[in-house]
Amino acid sequence: MNDSKLIARRKAILGPTYQNFYDKPLHLVRGSGTKLWDVDGREYIDSYNNVVSVGHCHPHVVEALCKQAATLNTHTRYLHEGIVELGEMLVARMPAAIDTCIFNCTGSEANDLATQIARHVTGNQGVAVTEASYHGVSELTRRLSTDSYPAQDRPDWLAVIEPPNLYRGPYRRDDPEAAQKYLQQACQQFDLLEARGHKLAAVMIDLVWDSNGPLVSPPEYLLGLCAEVRKRGGLVIADEVQSGYCRSGEHWWTSDVYGLEPDILTCGKPMGAGHPLALMATKRAIIDDYASQYHYFSTFGGNPVSAAVGKAVIEVIEAEGLLQNAHETGAYLEAGLRDLAAQHECIGDLQGRGLFWGLDMVTDRTARTPFSEIQMRHLGSLIAEQGVITGTSGRYGQILKLRPPLVFSRTDADKVLAALDSALHKLEI
Amino acid sequence: MNDSKLIARRKAILGPTYQNFYDKPLHLVRGSGTKLWDVDGREYIDSYNNVVSVGHCHPHVVEALCKQAATLNTHTRYLHEGIVELGEMLVARMPAAIDTCIFNCTGSEANDLATQIARHVTGNQGVAVTEASYHGVSELTRRLSTDSYPAQDRPDWLAVIEPPNLYRGPYRRDDPEAAQKYLQQACQQFDLLEARGHKLAAVMIDLVWDSNGPLVSPPEYLLGLCAEVRKRGGLVIADEVQSGYCRSGEHWWTSDVYGLEPDILTCGKPMGAGHPLALMATKRAIIDDYASQYHYFSTFGGNPVSAAVGKAVIEVIEAEGLLQNAHETGAYLEAGLRDLAAQHECIGDLQGRGLFWGLDMVTDRTARTPFSEIQMRHLGSLIAEQGVITGTSGRYGQILKLRPPLVFSRTDADKVLAALDSALHKLEI
Repeated sequence: MNDSKLIARRKAILGPTYQNFYDKPLHLVRGSGTKLWDVDGREYIDSYNNVVSVGHCHPHVVEALCKQAATLNTHTRYLHEGIVELGEMLVARMPAAIDTCIFNCTGSEANDLATQIARHVTGNQGVAVTEASYHGVSELTRRLSTDSYPAQDRPDWLAVIEPPNLYRGPYRRDDPEAAQKYLQQACQQFDLLEARGHKLAAVMIDLVWDSNGPLVSPPEYLLGLCAEVRKRGGLVIADEVQSGYCRSGEHWWTSDVYGLEPDILTCGKPMGAGHPLALMATKRAIIDDYASQYHYFSTFGGNPVSAAVGKAVIEVIEAEGLLQNAHETGAYLEAGLRDLAAQHECIGDLQGRGLFWGLDMVTDRTARTPFSEIQMRHLGSLIAEQGVITGTSGRYGQILKLRPPLVFSRTDADKVLAALDSALHKLEI
Repeated sequence: MNDSKLIARRKAILGPTYQNFYDKPLHLVRGSGTKLWDVDGREYIDSYNNVVSVGHCHPHVVEALCKQAATLNTHTRYLHEGIVELGEMLVARMPAAIDTCIFNCTGSEANDLATQIARHVTGNQGVAVTEASYHGVSELTRRLSTDSYPAQDRPDWLAVIEPPNLYRGPYRRDDPEAAQKYLQQACQQFDLLEARGHKLAAVMIDLVWDSNGPLVSPPEYLLGLCAEVRKRGGLVIADEVQSGYCRSGEHWWTSDVYGLEPDILTCGKPMGAGHPLALMATKRAIIDDYASQYHYFSTFGGNPVSAAVGKAVIEVIEAEGLLQNAHETGAYLEAGLRDLAAQHECIGDLQGRGLFWGLDMVTDRTARTPFSEIQMRHLGSLIAEQGVITGTSGRYGQILKLRPPLVFSRTDADKVLAALDSALHKLEI
């Protein structure tokens, strides 16, 4: 089908902030499980979209959505079982000490509120984030997203620390003191922040450093970082929009993988399998302090329909054993990716866990020269031609990102690995 | 049914930021059109909830939601007809010169982005809002919400102007120069802002001043205000979350009621009839300027399901003639309210239009002493006992607010008027 008319209409009505993946945009019309179909009936395996955490159009989620939407959809100023049940289900799966849920619609809203609360309860204004971080699109969370604007525009209350990238960062796997050195770099930034007159309200960390990777941190670095932030009076905010909801294959939350005990945990994307549902969860003492001065009300957040969807997603994850699947299929996928890396020089590094993997693409293994944007677009298109949807990420846009729905199977993994192999061979010709 | 256990569980899991309407919270379980039913089967007429713009659980909206949720739900980085069609439908109904849509999930997000864009394109930081305004809960929009935090915490880039309340404000209906005087007051605030070193990026106006009223402005004040803002280099942002979507009974947008031509128009609540869908619409030159430096992507905003819901809501509004209904039933409701005001001394004033009315409740007509919070809660409970749901608003919480779904009928109006009459009689005993 010729999409040029639709593309022109889209440009006319939505304007230039709307970007498409792929030079020839995918025009998708149907999804089911890990499969997507385009307008010409072409089938794709989705190895990118984590938002549809339990797979595209999962019947149990759709049923819960439709049933509640046909029954009642109000807001949280009336009493309703749904939000209470969803909150209880979430807290039961949360890191210890997290006992209170506030629902909103997007990860941006959750991170924005988390930062407001951290500033209120600490009385401090400083916030630490990593280089090339992404935490949202509100004014505040955009300032926390160092990948989204020029470094010279950074506010003076922002401390920017190096993500622990052991392949590409300043300190690498061959350095036994890498963790310690990353921590020292963070402390220097905290010192500079304090010298600028700002104490730390919080560190906000995406626990897979999605826009850098994914990355896997030395645990001692991450735990040391959190201890340092607390020592300086700040809170630890775990941004689990990317890393949460069983993505790691080890725990519901990557906080628990590291043994990190955050003061505030945020989530969004996977919670509603596509329905706008997000969460800021924290400890009761923190929210009591905040509530003594501020109210918070989200018109749509945690409404009966959102709550029904949120519950259904958790039910599917547990009924279908998707944490275990992320672990097992993730290990299978990892093994296949390591085989590919052994065969293809252009895969410089492989990091990730569970069902979240990144291939650091290089033109030169020794120099670790990252693929250019054009090379990455070409690679993505070659893979898409094989019927597989992937994504890109990374500080230089050089990461080929695999982050499929949690229902991803071994058969899916085989097809994705074959498509990658074929695309990489074509690239090397 | 005894809700005490559910209330206790709710408090335990959601914490103190979650407030309930009514001392004895309503436990609603079903909705249809303008009707709501509680857990004991008690029926209520909803004369408060504007979010369910086309009525609770409208079958056409539910069907569109379910059909699309069962088919595909991705995001706007793939091509899809839905968002393009929704954008085209909206722009066709927009004030002249507004030609470009950016979708997100909440009014907060729309207003936050609008302010970011206004600051970028003007190069200025100052923003003007009215006293007791409400524009959202993100860090930035909370600062724009002067009803949400103590006056001493206002940032120096904020100019706060008086809303044109001709009953309760400093200049009143009996003053033929009231409009001019409100404008002078605004200019003084703009001068003070500039003296603090901030030029105007924008004025953000809720065109019904919901948290003050609703209010009806002298057109010359509003148009004069916008001209003044533009003269000083700022943009005009019409926050139509409350005032838009046919609420006025005169035009789709209250901007068009006043002949105001905003640079940016935002909307949220009514667009998805409960589904989290919001909009920031503007002129192409503005978004082109912004896009030259920034991208914007909302994971959920304008996804295929949200777009299907948004389209269905517009289809219902037009198929059922709800703009006309807001006009006709609104006029009928107004006549009944004026009758009540003639009978009950405690109704100090009546303002509004279409299907949005506010009764300014007073203990003394001459002194215009507003009802206390306790008196308002008592009144609301008395009305609820008659099976009618209302709300409160206003700078002193003294406004009894009627803002029903747009499908509100004459029969509904009769029942609401009777309940008000009965409750007011009880109050006067």
